[in-house]
Amino acid sequence: MNFKHHVFRKRAAVLVCALSLSLLSQPGIAAEQAGAKAGTKVADFRLPNGLQLVVIPDHRAPVVTHMIWYKVGAADETPGKSGLAHFLEHLMFKGTAKNPQGRFSTVVARIGGQENAFTSSDYTGYYQRVPTEQLKTVMEFESDRMTGLVLTDAVVLPERDVILEERNQRMENNPRARLGEQMDAALFLNHPYGKPIIGWRHEMETLSREDALDFYKRFYGPNDAVVVIAGDIEPDTALKLAQETYGQIKPQAAIQQRKRPQEPPQVSPRSLTLADPRVEQPAVQRTYLVPSFATAKVNNLPGQSEALEVLGHVLGTGSNSRMYRDLVVDKRVAVSAGAYYDSSALDMAKFGFYASPADGVTLTQLEAAADAVIANVIDKGVTSEEMERAKSRMIADAIYAQDNQASMARWYGTALMTGATVEDVQQWPARIRAVTTQQVQDAAREWLDKKRSVTGYLVKDTSAPAGQPASIQPVKAEKRT
Amino acid sequence: MNFKHHVFRKRAAVLVCALSLSLLSQPGIAAEQAGAKAGTKVADFRLPNGLQLVVIPDHRAPVVTHMIWYKVGAADETPGKSGLAHFLEHLMFKGTAKNPQGRFSTVVARIGGQENAFTSSDYTGYYQRVPTEQLKTVMEFESDRMTGLVLTDAVVLPERDVILEERNQRMENNPRARLGEQMDAALFLNHPYGKPIIGWRHEMETLSREDALDFYKRFYGPNDAVVVIAGDIEPDTALKLAQETYGQIKPQAAIQQRKRPQEPPQVSPRSLTLADPRVEQPAVQRTYLVPSFATAKVNNLPGQSEALEVLGHVLGTGSNSRMYRDLVVDKRVAVSAGAYYDSSALDMAKFGFYASPADGVTLTQLEAAADAVIANVIDKGVTSEEMERAKSRMIADAIYAQDNQASMARWYGTALMTGATVEDVQQWPARIRAVTTQQVQDAAREWLDKKRSVTGYLVKDTSAPAGQPASIQPVKAEKRT
Repeated sequence: MNFKHHVFRKRAAVLVCALSLSLLSQPGIAAEQAGAKAGTKVADFRLPNGLQLVVIPDHRAPVVTHMIWYKVGAADETPGKSGLAHFLEHLMFKGTAKNPQGRFSTVVARIGGQENAFTSSDYTGYYQRVPTEQLKTVMEFESDRMTGLVLTDAVVLPERDVILEERNQRMENNPRARLGEQMDAALFLNHPYGKPIIGWRHEMETLSREDALDFYKRFYGPNDAVVVIAGDIEPDTALKLAQETYGQIKPQAAIQQRKRPQEPPQVSPRSLTLADPRVEQPAVQRTYLVPSFATAKVNNLPGQSEALEVLGHVLGTGSNSRMYRDLVVDKRVAVSAGAYYDSSALDMAKFGFYASPADGVTLTQLEAAADAVIANVIDKGVTSEEMERAKSRMIADAIYAQDNQASMARWYGTALMTGATVEDVQQWPARIRAVTTQQVQDAAREWLDKKRSVTGYLVKDTSAPAGQPASIQPVKAEKRT
Repeated sequence: MNFKHHVFRKRAAVLVCALSLSLLSQPGIAAEQAGAKAGTKVADFRLPNGLQLVVIPDHRAPVVTHMIWYKVGAADETPGKSGLAHFLEHLMFKGTAKNPQGRFSTVVARIGGQENAFTSSDYTGYYQRVPTEQLKTVMEFESDRMTGLVLTDAVVLPERDVILEERNQRMENNPRARLGEQMDAALFLNHPYGKPIIGWRHEMETLSREDALDFYKRFYGPNDAVVVIAGDIEPDTALKLAQETYGQIKPQAAIQQRKRPQEPPQVSPRSLTLADPRVEQPAVQRTYLVPSFATAKVNNLPGQSEALEVLGHVLGTGSNSRMYRDLVVDKRVAVSAGAYYDSSALDMAKFGFYASPADGVTLTQLEAAADAVIANVIDKGVTSEEMERAKSRMIADAIYAQDNQASMARWYGTALMTGATVEDVQQWPARIRAVTTQQVQDAAREWLDKKRSVTGYLVKDTSAPAGQPASIQPVKAEKRT
């Protein structure tokens, strides 16, 4: 749940819409202004219609970051309609009866604001950064499109070409992303996390206006939404604005608690190979199915998610990590290596490692070396020094992230979408500090079990000419993003 | 689509209920009575309410085999409710308002009949073999339970324990079945064929009376049913009986054409390992995703399914097959080896091979030897002698199968459930005869592509004591099957 992981996760599992420059790609935006401890006075409200409002005051500049999060993501899609959550995110910019297409974005631009949107397996979100005095304006626009979206085939069908082209860019043209897509499909035997957030092409091609509107009506409403406002505003003022805007919307009766098909016991180590002519750097990657913060909580596994976070850091974050030191520096079998864990998932989470071989090293040799690093942690545990260094860095990163309004808002929003509370977020540093070396070793032994994993090999396909892999189909639409 | 494949398929992908001795396990039952060519005068009717009736006259004995097939199987289940189609099959024996639990089976037994039921990914069926004069009686019972099923928790919950125990017997206690379950989950990236027909245990445990009744109302009705009657009856007589019984039922408005999520392009060869302490005979298996008869027809790939049938026969049926001769007889690297293809699937089908190593041979060596056999077929094709022998045997098997009422009825029923017509069944021998050596080689080259496959390794787990694998959970219910 720390910021570094968020940055990874953004790359790995969240599609950020390319409407404008993403705030989130500027993590240092407000970092020069030291001393902000915005997280200490967070307010948490709930309106009578079910909408949750979280306010993070931060008075360093007269701006606010306003985010609305809906509890719906790719894992909530009807089978056969993959990509629908993300498609709807795009279509949310197509206007309402009150505000025709383009007006919202034009107003945001005119007042010097920024806006964007993102979709993950678990949530969909929209945000704007605007001068504080314009906050009510964006809340009016957002509350209007919460239930007022108007879609015609004339806007839906060209947008479908846009998301197909986005798939081309993100997936088909990116061998590493293709490998990840295949690994997810193999890791999850039953859970919809196995489907790509962007969608399978053949299903995206069939998504219709009706599909989008049905999905919208089923999942968008105040009782499924969390508004997070970070910035130069007092909680009571934000609450009043929320009541005047979102507060006027009736709860949506169709919204029910999410319940996805869960995994059976994982009993077989899996592996797969993706050969692509455009691969310049082969790689071996592995992902293990492990508890998320939410499933550890539900299944009464206290501290296990936090132990995995520390383990991910010790094992694979930075040049002092076990993986990097052992594979890149000491043995010189790899040119890059690392590991990661993201606790933020409503259902189970992934723990992964990756490495690219040095010249003359095979993927089999490299995998064996990585397995030896993991076996060593399981057998001998980690040192107190490693624990201290990891914890200090993780907590420092989190404090640093608090200097960025969008990062803060995003941290709370992600947590609230994936089974955590405001309190859970605030207690995160204490929970990390409490992790013991024994817990880290136990977590490695318990969860880094190959039966619960898929190993992926990325290799250069020398049988096909680069640039023309057989499986890529062109989109007839122009490139729009 | 020949009989041998049906026998395999029965083991592999169809759960036959253990109510009584299965007719299908007695393929030779009427074989002594030579000369029957029942398939030549098959009648095909459709009642106004949508029910299809196929009659296969066979006057060698005064008995009939009556089967009703519903166009619903495990691939039609709601995600999260795996096992529901098969569970409903069991619950169909729980009685109606008119005929309380047990009466139907008691009557069948009293008149010296046999009955059973089966569930696959694509269909669910019920059948009885009774003296011809009792046919109307079973049709009355069957039409009564088509819409009149009554379920209470008192009968549903114990039956759920029965299917859980059935899962224990069929899957958890059978390492090879476990391997197959894992391979299916890895082969299908998106299609529900990846789920086990029996269901995932954790989902079976939650199946309720309401789930079963909802599913029943959505899929059971005359407009979703095919009745196949083979035996000592004239088509017109059977039609009259059908009109008097099934003909009285209104079409079920909720029934819609089935549409399952389809596969994305398969781009990564997958492999997995199942280690189980009870494995005495290790094995390597591979399944490729290939066209079924139905998808070859829809996608305008004429002859490709038939070419795969001949290929399966040449490659791996019997002791003259390539796999057996090369791996077992010549190279002595295997103690068993074979290949198979079943064309009967509404969506895509599987082509597979399997082999168990001789002493001292590793699975890697054995797999390489099997790959060499396949590479040889792809490079050099098959011989005319092999083609003739395979075709003759396949067609002879089919003719032999016609001597068994149940086999005949089952052949037509399976075909009609999986996108074929009565005419398709009857033209099958001609289509097989027309397959050329070039088509077989082309099919091997086109479809036996590792990118479209999963390879499974079954190995002995020496880390756990036999009989207590960690992943098996006991069922508290008594054993009932």
